[in-house]
Amino acid sequence: MSVLKGAAVIGQSGGPTSVINASALGCIKTALANENITNVYAAEYGILGILHDRLFDCGKEDPAELDLMKFTPASALGSCRYKLKDPDEDDTDYRRILEIFKKYNIRYFFYNGGNDSMDTCNKVSKYMMKVGYECRIMGIPKTIDNDLIGTDHCPGYASAAKYIATSIAEISRDAHVYETGTIIVFEIMGRNAGWLTAAAALADVCGEGPDLIYLPEITFDMDRFLKEVTEVYEKQKYCIVAVSEGVKDKDGRFISEYGSDLATNTKDVFGHSQMGGLAATLVQYIKNYNGAKTRGIEFSLLQRCAAHCASLTDIEESYASGKAAVECALDGITDKMVGFERPEEGAYECRIKLIDLTAVANAEKTIPRDWINEAGNRMLQPFYDYALPLIQGFPVIPTENGMPRYPRLKKVFANEQ
Amino acid sequence: MSVLKGAAVIGQSGGPTSVINASALGCIKTALANENITNVYAAEYGILGILHDRLFDCGKEDPAELDLMKFTPASALGSCRYKLKDPDEDDTDYRRILEIFKKYNIRYFFYNGGNDSMDTCNKVSKYMMKVGYECRIMGIPKTIDNDLIGTDHCPGYASAAKYIATSIAEISRDAHVYETGTIIVFEIMGRNAGWLTAAAALADVCGEGPDLIYLPEITFDMDRFLKEVTEVYEKQKYCIVAVSEGVKDKDGRFISEYGSDLATNTKDVFGHSQMGGLAATLVQYIKNYNGAKTRGIEFSLLQRCAAHCASLTDIEESYASGKAAVECALDGITDKMVGFERPEEGAYECRIKLIDLTAVANAEKTIPRDWINEAGNRMLQPFYDYALPLIQGFPVIPTENGMPRYPRLKKVFANEQ
Repeated sequence: MSVLKGAAVIGQSGGPTSVINASALGCIKTALANENITNVYAAEYGILGILHDRLFDCGKEDPAELDLMKFTPASALGSCRYKLKDPDEDDTDYRRILEIFKKYNIRYFFYNGGNDSMDTCNKVSKYMMKVGYECRIMGIPKTIDNDLIGTDHCPGYASAAKYIATSIAEISRDAHVYETGTIIVFEIMGRNAGWLTAAAALADVCGEGPDLIYLPEITFDMDRFLKEVTEVYEKQKYCIVAVSEGVKDKDGRFISEYGSDLATNTKDVFGHSQMGGLAATLVQYIKNYNGAKTRGIEFSLLQRCAAHCASLTDIEESYASGKAAVECALDGITDKMVGFERPEEGAYECRIKLIDLTAVANAEKTIPRDWINEAGNRMLQPFYDYALPLIQGFPVIPTENGMPRYPRLKKVFANEQ
Repeated sequence: MSVLKGAAVIGQSGGPTSVINASALGCIKTALANENITNVYAAEYGILGILHDRLFDCGKEDPAELDLMKFTPASALGSCRYKLKDPDEDDTDYRRILEIFKKYNIRYFFYNGGNDSMDTCNKVSKYMMKVGYECRIMGIPKTIDNDLIGTDHCPGYASAAKYIATSIAEISRDAHVYETGTIIVFEIMGRNAGWLTAAAALADVCGEGPDLIYLPEITFDMDRFLKEVTEVYEKQKYCIVAVSEGVKDKDGRFISEYGSDLATNTKDVFGHSQMGGLAATLVQYIKNYNGAKTRGIEFSLLQRCAAHCASLTDIEESYASGKAAVECALDGITDKMVGFERPEEGAYECRIKLIDLTAVANAEKTIPRDWINEAGNRMLQPFYDYALPLIQGFPVIPTENGMPRYPRLKKVFANEQ
């Protein structure tokens, strides 16, 4: 394998997670330590940082500050949601990227994100091959949705899962402190894949798991839902329900859109129709059906950035994925995403594998049907076996004055030098 | 002081907190260890447990399981929201309570709760004095609202404050990962006192504090609010806002009720008018005013039960308050609530003080005006000096399989023996 000398750039893209910076740190530190990598740049706001020539020099950061990235939520480098066009239709962006790559002699490109980001990574990779610019390009996965194909699981999923399970356990305890009960509906992220919503079931470990779970993998039926919730509620005087934001009815309509049914023909004073979230809509349906005391709770952004409740396993694996991306690239590998696999039998262990970028871009992995009970409202043992090893371990988070200590990056930009 | 021999009962009442069980544990363990206390009973669902003769024997619990209460959210004994009538109008409940006290020779009564619970505690105390039944009665405070008078702060406040500040810091980081910004409005509990909302300011410690804070102590003006938010947003491309659920306009109307203005004359398919929460209402107003990308986040029950982000200081002080209640009662003190005080100068230290139950029942403490800036939208240094010592320290929470390990109580009821 020929040695490739040049600069490296890393970018983050898509919605952040609690641990995306651990991945970036694994990448940055490994790159900084290698003599063939002349400079390590971070692209501000993902691919936009390259398009706008906004690259800051990681070598100019205080290493102790960089190290804090391991425990810091959100994208420390800045993120974007920018979709590159098909280069056959419009190659403007690609020519600009090539120009910047040449300007800084960038020979290593690492892109840290989910499905859409792997699409970007894949397109850049294929373009550079096409024009014959030697550059090793690796995707570093992240997504709380856990829906990237080819990998056993995704960095970021386990921490979000742990936060959701822990919070549901706590609220579930709260829900049955009174003699008179309540029905709580949790709305959890995941438009097409129910991995995060399924994680609610892990609250079973402390005896506080949800009574009912509704995933986007299973067609949602409002009448059946109302009956199932009411049945549990009448039996035990409370009912805890976890619902994915992505649940759809048999006609493929999102249940979250039912909120506009509730407010049919209604406009606010500004002329806009009002619409609540899914949890708000469902508790309204429940209240109207059985008159119970209800509460809808939306985890909202909390679920993707609650680093204070991260999984240590997730942090370490995320770091390892960033590190592996650089090591593989130095070994001559390109056009791949780093993924994970585990032994089919025996104790859990996380091993690095590589997946073709072409295969992973824009594809989605959902929960196997046989991990869900027949009624489609509970998780079965294979899910617990799959997910529990991922949420193990509690990080010791660096703190200052009772609060997390986040990195203070200098961000010395290359184009300002 | 004459020795008083007999049984003790402890009850929890009102909305739970992350640390109310730490208080109960301090009380239970101290009582169990004293030879003059013949039995230690826990009332199931607060005062209702006495009225219904549902007392379980803490002496029959596994001590190791009881110890887990120190880190367990929600009311482990069960809670209630039950207001005792004025005994001069209807003394039915009081006669029943006396009957149960006599049945089990209860000579010590500890009641663990907030304002309303101290009202209950006070009424029972005065009744027992009036009828000449010798019984020592002590209130043990708890409330995330921090609004009990006579005490420097309340057990439960600091943990909720820490959770809110930490979560806002995390989400605030998340809010500015993109080049294009957003406006986030956090809705925080506290109907009349802004202590919890003010705690959002503690995110400043990690450089991620909210830009604007709106407390119930300050009259809310929608026009001014929209201008202030927009000004910050236009300057820095994002804006983080913390708003108390209790903010009111100059006519004393809750802003949360403005949601029904937005939906004036609108009914859902069931004939009910639709109304969102305060955060949802405010982001709708903002969106209509400046067209920005917005998000409303309601911490909901999370803020009162997120024991995984509790303050160790709060846990230890809560435990100490329960312990002190028993020690004081054994010393012959009655008709008091345990409170806290700190030295006026020098390092923070939490000392026990006692407050008359009559004084504390139903009164409320709000934030001093001179702890808030003149514009009424930021906290000043005295608040930070007050609140920061309270959120210090991180507990090591007992866990099992990556999740908190909650106590498994046997609850052996006295009337079933």
